[in-house]
Amino acid sequence: MSKIRHELTVDLGDRSYPIIIGQGMLGSYDLSPYVAGSQVMIVTNETVAPLYLEQAVSCFPGKTVDSVVLPDGERYKDWETLNLIFDALLEKRHTRKTTLVALGGGVVGDMTGFAASCYQRGVPFIQIPTTLLSQVDSSVGGKTGINHPLGKNMIGAFHQPEAVLIDTDSLLTLPSREVSAGLAEVIKYGLIRDTEFLGWLEESVDDLVARKPGALAEAIFRSCLCKAEVVALDEREGGIRAILNLGHTFGHAIETFAGYGNWLHGEAVGAGMVMAADLSVREGMIAAEKLQQVRVLIGRAGLPEAPPIGMGADDFLNLMAVDKKNVDGRLRLVLLKSLGNAIVTDKADPENLDKTLTSFCRLQ
Amino acid sequence: MSKIRHELTVDLGDRSYPIIIGQGMLGSYDLSPYVAGSQVMIVTNETVAPLYLEQAVSCFPGKTVDSVVLPDGERYKDWETLNLIFDALLEKRHTRKTTLVALGGGVVGDMTGFAASCYQRGVPFIQIPTTLLSQVDSSVGGKTGINHPLGKNMIGAFHQPEAVLIDTDSLLTLPSREVSAGLAEVIKYGLIRDTEFLGWLEESVDDLVARKPGALAEAIFRSCLCKAEVVALDEREGGIRAILNLGHTFGHAIETFAGYGNWLHGEAVGAGMVMAADLSVREGMIAAEKLQQVRVLIGRAGLPEAPPIGMGADDFLNLMAVDKKNVDGRLRLVLLKSLGNAIVTDKADPENLDKTLTSFCRLQ
Repeated sequence: MSKIRHELTVDLGDRSYPIIIGQGMLGSYDLSPYVAGSQVMIVTNETVAPLYLEQAVSCFPGKTVDSVVLPDGERYKDWETLNLIFDALLEKRHTRKTTLVALGGGVVGDMTGFAASCYQRGVPFIQIPTTLLSQVDSSVGGKTGINHPLGKNMIGAFHQPEAVLIDTDSLLTLPSREVSAGLAEVIKYGLIRDTEFLGWLEESVDDLVARKPGALAEAIFRSCLCKAEVVALDEREGGIRAILNLGHTFGHAIETFAGYGNWLHGEAVGAGMVMAADLSVREGMIAAEKLQQVRVLIGRAGLPEAPPIGMGADDFLNLMAVDKKNVDGRLRLVLLKSLGNAIVTDKADPENLDKTLTSFCRLQ
Repeated sequence: MSKIRHELTVDLGDRSYPIIIGQGMLGSYDLSPYVAGSQVMIVTNETVAPLYLEQAVSCFPGKTVDSVVLPDGERYKDWETLNLIFDALLEKRHTRKTTLVALGGGVVGDMTGFAASCYQRGVPFIQIPTTLLSQVDSSVGGKTGINHPLGKNMIGAFHQPEAVLIDTDSLLTLPSREVSAGLAEVIKYGLIRDTEFLGWLEESVDDLVARKPGALAEAIFRSCLCKAEVVALDEREGGIRAILNLGHTFGHAIETFAGYGNWLHGEAVGAGMVMAADLSVREGMIAAEKLQQVRVLIGRAGLPEAPPIGMGADDFLNLMAVDKKNVDGRLRLVLLKSLGNAIVTDKADPENLDKTLTSFCRLQ
């Protein structure tokens, strides 16, 4: 059986970079051409290190490779943990010619990218995402950052990697809950921009949940392609890129309410997309059966279809008010004009929003 | 008597910005054209706030202006203090369309610029530097950052302001030690690139120490012009910009050894420039009497001509090894080919360096 392998380029002018997707890449693929200097610092966490750190080190032949192992979890996506990366870099005397490598999920990727963006005012980094969510989401876009007690990802930078290496084998050790969370973002790409991909997902969702390698590689490739297209059109998120936030305004509120790490990001986005579809129905944009179609697909992917019990409409309104997608105090939301076509609007009727929130919130 | 006023543009393509230098600007100059949104957050410190905060607020007619007052001092240039800015922004619900304003010296400028570079992944900022050092140094270049226990300015970003407003009147409340510290950087511009300016400085240094407004405005204008030229040639510090670090490799070692805040940055740079001139003599680049000329000018500016007593050659070597000006482990230094012409080299003879260090270090 031949190895499945895809490659694409994220086209950002002089900051363009490749995404290499395949089976068995970790430990065999040579990433040293993407390292300008002689020093490499691999940043990973205590869950991923025993599984893949050794293989990752061997991707950098001829380089001096150090590593730093962070605690695992969204709740550690803070300054204190970020500082462990700076401590390691300075203790090992890494110069401004060093290259950082993120080996792990979205938290490791966001923190490593942010550390790279501000260590000595900016050094290069490479991503080796090992969760489905990070493979289809943070591989493309250059968003990096940490959380603040008053909001998620409030402190960060745009910083593009030199290359992204995705090994589908790394998904075999992933908890199924995290596979589902990754599928939320995969489904999102179908919903916002690609009706044909959405159809393929409705056919293939069971294969994806069962982690069939061919289906996974295809889903990752098409998701990265979709996101790369959108990001190339709008690198700094002034316009169309905002459609990538489908379900995220509701989702971030859910994550904050639940406490970081209790709901996975993808789970919150899954429920958030159902809520966005519901509001789209109330706004007269899509038919009620389309909402049902979204809800069923989200459910088949193993994702929650509603926010946590106990979260009220007021909780949403308060938490969404500080969300960074707002401009000059108006609530901006991504809604569905049809399945496969999302738009950004700050004109949703507040009464419809209330109805959506009320219909989804179960206080006990 | 007509008001002294200069204006120049730092030419960085679509990130170009003006520097406006004059008397009585604070409280009268309208900066609101440089604010895209409706929110402004002025960041200042407890020393500057009682003197100039009210006047600064009135530079933004028609805007919603909040402020945050930080503790004063280089020792607060850390994450904890930086976080006070994020706390204020989030508590007051500043969106990604907010504009930050740095009102104060270099520490306030560096921290505010860094906060702006990473709040919600980047918002604009304006500088109102109130110390001579920050007026002639951090006004130009876009360097922002904070310190790490293992090194100065190790965490930061390049982030250009929308505009810089310099009021020479703000120097009237500055301690004389800080005027001298600012003159170290002014003298540096003469030494690295402008023989004619250096001559003017030798004539005018007493007027500058005496804070004659015309002399100060001229020195600030010419310093900013010189730095703007160098930075425009090399925004990301790959090449010629490194000459701006004359005296800084020795100077950073002195600051770290003395403990942040005990020696002012400019004082350390003053002594560092004398050391660099000394090494330039030993390397056969300039004559011994040129060293004397530098030493005399530094002394007349009220600056120390040698490192602190108790600092040894080994202290220098250890502290300079982690300096970020090093590439792949080699020590890079800025030396003087002549007075008015600096070069960057990693080829200084280690024995000459030892002789310079030994001749300046007084262990008791």
